[in-house]
Amino acid sequence: MLPTPPFPTPYIAVIFVNQRTPVEDGAYGQTADAMVELAKQQPGYLGVDSVRGADGLGITVSYWADEQSIIAWKNVGAHRAAQIAGMKRWYEAYTTHIAKVERAYALSDAAVTGKSPAEA
Amino acid sequence: MLPTPPFPTPYIAVIFVNQRTPVEDGAYGQTADAMVELAKQQPGYLGVDSVRGADGLGITVSYWADEQSIIAWKNVGAHRAAQIAGMKRWYEAYTTHIAKVERAYALSDAAVTGKSPAEA
Repeated sequence: MLPTPPFPTPYIAVIFVNQRTPVEDGAYGQTADAMVELAKQQPGYLGVDSVRGADGLGITVSYWADEQSIIAWKNVGAHRAAQIAGMKRWYEAYTTHIAKVERAYALSDAAVTGKSPAEA
Repeated sequence: MLPTPPFPTPYIAVIFVNQRTPVEDGAYGQTADAMVELAKQQPGYLGVDSVRGADGLGITVSYWADEQSIIAWKNVGAHRAAQIAGMKRWYEAYTTHIAKVERAYALSDAAVTGKSPAEA
């Protein structure tokens, strides 16, 4: 998997940091995959980066064109149901940060412009 | 590991999504740990969440009080040197998104307030 590229700013990043419970009911992976597919169909969806470590800590960052896109996505019924199941069964703990991306750059940008990432 | 808690908004999140090269020169883990320790000593540092998956994709999100803290951290010599080594040897690709967090909530908040995360 490669990181998603930067998008034209500004855009919104939803940073979802979570620790899984030991519950492996099969439905978790299926629901997570279904939610990614459903998110991709939403207006304003830009992309997603998602990683889970061996210790059960996961970070999913989804990128959205604007606030309205996030509000609409929150109110999709299947998404709400998945969030409730997540709270009850699948997540020991989570924190969500909703943030407006003001600038972004990639390794390839630095290579092209000759700037170090510290200056980008 | 548990997710860091939300901080009082606004604050800055630096979302660093990266794919490692296969280079395992021992210095990578050492440098990554040293940078986390060094970041913790910087003014304005709030916290960090970091995960790497089995496929080499990693996401590190660091949280900072304000823009000035990030600029100061960028200019720390050891950090710049680590970034250059990262570009040359350790990262196949990366994207960095710098974002202002406007709201944040945790599973425990939802439990306390009785709100579903969809409403938080």
